[in-house]
Amino acid sequence: MKKQLFDQESGELIETEVMKSITIDCAIFGFENDSLEVLLVKHAHGISEGRWGLPGGWILKNEDIDGAAQRLLKELTGLNSIYLEQLKAFGDPNRFPLARVITIGYYALIKKDDYNVKVGFTASEAKWHKIKEIPDLIYDHNKILEYSLEHLRKKIRQAPIGFNLLPEKFTLLQLMQLYEEILNVGMDKPNFRRKILKMKLLKDLGEKQTDVSHRAARLYKFDPEIYKKLTKKGFVFEF
Amino acid sequence: MKKQLFDQESGELIETEVMKSITIDCAIFGFENDSLEVLLVKHAHGISEGRWGLPGGWILKNEDIDGAAQRLLKELTGLNSIYLEQLKAFGDPNRFPLARVITIGYYALIKKDDYNVKVGFTASEAKWHKIKEIPDLIYDHNKILEYSLEHLRKKIRQAPIGFNLLPEKFTLLQLMQLYEEILNVGMDKPNFRRKILKMKLLKDLGEKQTDVSHRAARLYKFDPEIYKKLTKKGFVFEF
Repeated sequence: MKKQLFDQESGELIETEVMKSITIDCAIFGFENDSLEVLLVKHAHGISEGRWGLPGGWILKNEDIDGAAQRLLKELTGLNSIYLEQLKAFGDPNRFPLARVITIGYYALIKKDDYNVKVGFTASEAKWHKIKEIPDLIYDHNKILEYSLEHLRKKIRQAPIGFNLLPEKFTLLQLMQLYEEILNVGMDKPNFRRKILKMKLLKDLGEKQTDVSHRAARLYKFDPEIYKKLTKKGFVFEF
Repeated sequence: MKKQLFDQESGELIETEVMKSITIDCAIFGFENDSLEVLLVKHAHGISEGRWGLPGGWILKNEDIDGAAQRLLKELTGLNSIYLEQLKAFGDPNRFPLARVITIGYYALIKKDDYNVKVGFTASEAKWHKIKEIPDLIYDHNKILEYSLEHLRKKIRQAPIGFNLLPEKFTLLQLMQLYEEILNVGMDKPNFRRKILKMKLLKDLGEKQTDVSHRAARLYKFDPEIYKKLTKKGFVFEF
């Protein structure tokens, strides 16, 4: 199957051979204020024109699937060199309306501030959406997103992946709000504070917030070295 | 693409439409004596004739991928109603010599005694192989198997999945040998005994082994109810 693709270096449309019955879709999560968000693109052409979906598309014949995920994400949203992890393949025979297509899901957690979203390729818009305000997405993308969220909820109890969503320096309140939002629970601040400090994963930076209207809170940093030591003898996140 | 498939109910060969560039491969693990084993099939036809590989094959056009994994495993090895978990898709462009084919890996841990292996379909032999004596497999199957093993090693530290490989009633020595074999480490018996009993996951059956030439050891059973309670407040396997 031939596809016209836009070559970003030459600025020209080129014809490329793509795999016929298999695609890639990416769930990219970010966190802002107290909301978990996911990056969606609005389709510019075809049967999905005007509708939102996860960034994704066809795999080139000569391209590794991890590389395809990187390329598609960059072409559609401008996000470059993101650490994408494969989630799983979604293969319901009726998931795609025009043909039998299996899609491989990828996901990533990113610090929103580090990236500029720039729409491109076959999308007319690329925008962060709050997890609590997700529109009706194309194909089975609501289902893929829901699975990604479940996976995130499970993983955040086993490993300190949540820190990938926060700025390098953060307050305990920001961290608690992140866990509250992802796990969809309310937490007690003194209790959270006691538990998280007991884990000894955070480094107190001896600094405080600046430019805030409320009372400035202490800033912390995640310490991956300490985490590495802790995991050697087994470790669990208790929330 | 048309494929001839053997209909086990009618006993006839039927032509079916299969997906062209995507397959499934299954890593089925079992445990016997003190060895971890994997189920392999020997190919009867085509470019892989006479060589061993993981059981797998093409996905039918109208078939869900989880269902395809179940069907292929049953056709090739006789194993029926196995709880298969999806591992991940393997998509190196050069993994398959004749065309660009992506494969979705599945895996399962089974109690060997509960199943009879019966070769069928496009295989001439189906046999358990010790993990430490794996031959040179077709395509990238050695790599898929290695990935499955890594996944198993990671998971066995997070959840009591190892019990799926043992008979319902087992001795502490059998359990320790299972962990030693999977994690590829030597363990100290009194130390293992103390740690595992402290976890309170095992039920002492008040029975002993029968028909053994050495001194009969106490038999235990894994208690999934206790495990469920423990996981609610966070749980880690310390070995």
